[in-house]
Amino acid sequence: MLPGFLARAVELLLGREGRSLHLKAAGTATAVLAVVMLLGSWAVVAAEDGARGANLKTYPQALWWSIETATTVGYGDFYPVTPVGRLIGAAVMVVGITTYGMVTAALATWFVGREQRRRHHLAHGARELGEETTRALHERFDRLERMVAGKDERD
Amino acid sequence: MLPGFLARAVELLLGREGRSLHLKAAGTATAVLAVVMLLGSWAVVAAEDGARGANLKTYPQALWWSIETATTVGYGDFYPVTPVGRLIGAAVMVVGITTYGMVTAALATWFVGREQRRRHHLAHGARELGEETTRALHERFDRLERMVAGKDERD
Amino acid sequence: MLPGFLARAVELLLGREGRSLHLKAAGTATAVLAVVMLLGSWAVVAAEDGARGANLKTYPQALWWSIETATTVGYGDFYPVTPVGRLIGAAVMVVGITTYGMVTAALATWFVGREQRRRHHLAHGARELGEETTRALHERFDRLERMVAGKDERD
Amino acid sequence: MLPGFLARAVELLLGREGRSLHLKAAGTATAVLAVVMLLGSWAVVAAEDGARGANLKTYPQALWWSIETATTVGYGDFYPVTPVGRLIGAAVMVVGITTYGMVTAALATWFVGREQRRRHHLAHGARELGEETTRALHERFDRLERMVAGKDERD
Repeated sequence: MLPGFLARAVELLLGREGRSLHLKAAGTATAVLAVVMLLGSWAVVAAEDGARGANLKTYPQALWWSIETATTVGYGDFYPVTPVGRLIGAAVMVVGITTYGMVTAALATWFVGREQRRRHHLAHGARELGEETTRALHERFDRLERMVAGKDERD
Repeated sequence: MLPGFLARAVELLLGREGRSLHLKAAGTATAVLAVVMLLGSWAVVAAEDGARGANLKTYPQALWWSIETATTVGYGDFYPVTPVGRLIGAAVMVVGITTYGMVTAALATWFVGREQRRRHHLAHGARELGEETTRALHERFDRLERMVAGKDERD
Repeated sequence: MLPGFLARAVELLLGREGRSLHLKAAGTATAVLAVVMLLGSWAVVAAEDGARGANLKTYPQALWWSIETATTVGYGDFYPVTPVGRLIGAAVMVVGITTYGMVTAALATWFVGREQRRRHHLAHGARELGEETTRALHERFDRLERMVAGKDERD
Repeated sequence: MLPGFLARAVELLLGREGRSLHLKAAGTATAVLAVVMLLGSWAVVAAEDGARGANLKTYPQALWWSIETATTVGYGDFYPVTPVGRLIGAAVMVVGITTYGMVTAALATWFVGREQRRRHHLAHGARELGEETTRALHERFDRLERMVAGKDERD
């Protein structure tokens, strides 16, 4: 049920084909992070169950742990102590910082694009200048042809 | 009183209409982070009040906690233990890393813009070259017309 | 054996000469981070061995410590207590955040490049416009020459 | 003595006038971070001296603390407990993440610049195309003038 619901959410989020790469990448990474945190919290409780010194015992605790792990805060009030639990923790960390890197890079791309659109107007101006020049040169040809043709008629 | 004061500060910070998107975004994010930290510190003390194992008991302690949480340092000397307190903590974390991402992206946009302005001079040079070419071609037309007209007069 | 194997892996990863700088830099940084984590985990156990209050005692523990250190999570369940151990820890931290910065910057470069390729099509269009203009002007010359030559023949 | 030595190091690092903004900014931030960490470590030991529950007692401990604070690892083995100590800690955190943001943004600018230089060759090609077009048009004028002048002579 959950994966089906999530697949639909991802589809909704990423459905529009024309969207830019950086928006798609940041959206996908955020969706993947949400799945990894929700499933990882459940899995880490199962992995730690019964281990000596285990402190991740309930799903709400594990959700809080996944938030402070994905954001790299890591207070140390909760942490995995089993090999499998630590593998899950490593996955949450890596997906968390990758998502954060993608969002930062997407923000930079958005900002840079906005700044360049302003400069693009200048490039557009240069293009219009070129069209004006072309029109002026054609007018000179028209006038020269009339001059040559005028002489012709008078001959 | 505080929100009014803050609204004015935000207005002052973001007042100039023509400012670039990346400066506005980084400024807004920093202002939002300051509000979330100041209000969150107060709210987390209220939320944790009387809970078993609570360690966030005074506003100064909570302010220090909000700083080490927003910067994702997280020593573990203070952390929320109630669901509401953890929700506030999650908000401080997410707003903190988002602000940091915005500032990094704004810095990148600023640096990239400065580098491109140097290259823009080259584009400007190309434009001037085009204007010079146009002037030269018009002079050729002038000369040719004088030649054709000169023949005309002599006829 | 290990360095030889790693050198080959790095070679494989970075072998293609034509690759962009940002891909090479992010790939090299990730490979260096992997080496620093694998060797650092072994070195920190050796450095901490027998020290008072030492908690990094086995290689699996040290590997987990290197992961939470490189990602800057830092729960505080494991940490070095000797000068040499802390030097190794500082190396893992610095290489970790540098790698992460390189990956974020490489992502931003990739995203910006994709956005600019779309705009490049516009620049390409402007170039084609220039070629069309040139062709039109040559046709005007051809017509004018025929006019002048035609008069010539009739004379 | 130290400030004088550091001022000279900063001067050496930032001396070349023509250097790009992003290199200057990343270099300055790194130098400022080094100063804040070295002075902050000394100041935090002085601030914490004699406080109840203080754990930052020696300069080497404080240096290690400043490294794990600036990189936002924050194991929790050392942390300030006095208002002044926490103010110093906040400064180390903020300068640390700002430096890291500057370095990441400078890396992105470097990568983007390298990618654009490849595209700049294309723009350069377009410029050469324009010069070739101009030369061709001038040759057409030369030929046309010879035609008009040739008729003139035969008349």
